[in-house]
Amino acid sequence: MERHFETSLRDLKQQLVGMAGYVEKAIDLAADVLTRRDPAQIEEIFAVEKEINKRHLAVDNASVTLLALQQPLAADLRLIVAVLKMNTDLERMGDQAVNIAYALKDLLARPNFRAPKDLLEMFTHAKFMVGEALDSFVQKSPALSRDVLKRDETVDALKNKIFRETVEKMKADPAQIDDGLGIILIARNLERIGDHATNIAEDVIFAATGEDIRHGYKVETLREALKK
Amino acid sequence: MERHFETSLRDLKQQLVGMAGYVEKAIDLAADVLTRRDPAQIEEIFAVEKEINKRHLAVDNASVTLLALQQPLAADLRLIVAVLKMNTDLERMGDQAVNIAYALKDLLARPNFRAPKDLLEMFTHAKFMVGEALDSFVQKSPALSRDVLKRDETVDALKNKIFRETVEKMKADPAQIDDGLGIILIARNLERIGDHATNIAEDVIFAATGEDIRHGYKVETLREALKK
Repeated sequence: MERHFETSLRDLKQQLVGMAGYVEKAIDLAADVLTRRDPAQIEEIFAVEKEINKRHLAVDNASVTLLALQQPLAADLRLIVAVLKMNTDLERMGDQAVNIAYALKDLLARPNFRAPKDLLEMFTHAKFMVGEALDSFVQKSPALSRDVLKRDETVDALKNKIFRETVEKMKADPAQIDDGLGIILIARNLERIGDHATNIAEDVIFAATGEDIRHGYKVETLREALKK
Repeated sequence: MERHFETSLRDLKQQLVGMAGYVEKAIDLAADVLTRRDPAQIEEIFAVEKEINKRHLAVDNASVTLLALQQPLAADLRLIVAVLKMNTDLERMGDQAVNIAYALKDLLARPNFRAPKDLLEMFTHAKFMVGEALDSFVQKSPALSRDVLKRDETVDALKNKIFRETVEKMKADPAQIDDGLGIILIARNLERIGDHATNIAEDVIFAATGEDIRHGYKVETLREALKK
């Protein structure tokens, strides 16, 4: 029974890692659309998100089944509760990727649209954060988790910079308003992906150490980010 | 033991309802700031959100403790898992209220700023959805849950209308760009509050019936909303 539980837990972790792979793929595809302007890749994002949703339901079911059949205690219980939460965050990242895809659809229709370099950088960071958050989970590494939290500050700072510069451009040339709004909305979607990765990192710290850093940290960084 | 479990469950539900009350209060305060332009109320939103965060941790701990001590099965297990998820959604609504508060801070600094009627209507619907989602949970009423899902479509439609009309105004008069962006961002925050209430309603349907309507519904309405 004990051995079976260990196997199930390992399997659950693997499912979560697989799901995160799809999230990374969706982010990659979106960044690619921006640079190559290939509309076929937008459709691929929708397909990837469907896969994420399927896996979301599967992980949820597997977690509840494990709770019911194994009635785990202490660390194992905390771990499964953390999986349930991470699963939600990964699924919501998929939603954000779909939001980005719709914004990209509009932007591709405008031949003069150029993405700012900072936006592409946000994509890179966001994708990295997803991978790192999952690594921190699999390796039970609070150090990696804390790195995710740090990178989230970079993502927030980039978003604020893009926001500021884009608004300036829109004011200087109202013909830029549609493009500018698209850029701002994508930047916010990426910021949210970063937030979800941060949630995962916080859950890992909680599952690994029982230390709940969630609100102290969040309120502080939120304030800092919004002050900029 | 059984009796103690029932009491704990009822207590947990009450905690969640109390937390939702704070979320409603934060939404109310923000709507009030828009109409009365009272900056003191912005600070109150921050205070309310701190309270929401405190309760979020308490509900999380109570849920995990209940899972550990009572090792519930079937419907009770599904219920506690649903509580964990609803708790996350309520906490994120608090985050959105804080985002709105920061946007309001900027907007209040501009004497000519006027909120569109539709935005105030979004506040009303969003608040209603929070209360209704919680009612559907306490009363175990899938009918109420489905009403939340329906109202979410109204909220999405209002957001799209505000978005469209605000962009037009910005284009016609670039002096409106800052105000317009503030309005668009608040509308999106309210849309997200509606999404979180929808998540809760979906969790209620799942907890009550074991019927998982999440992705079928979500993908469909998301598409519909984004097409408009």
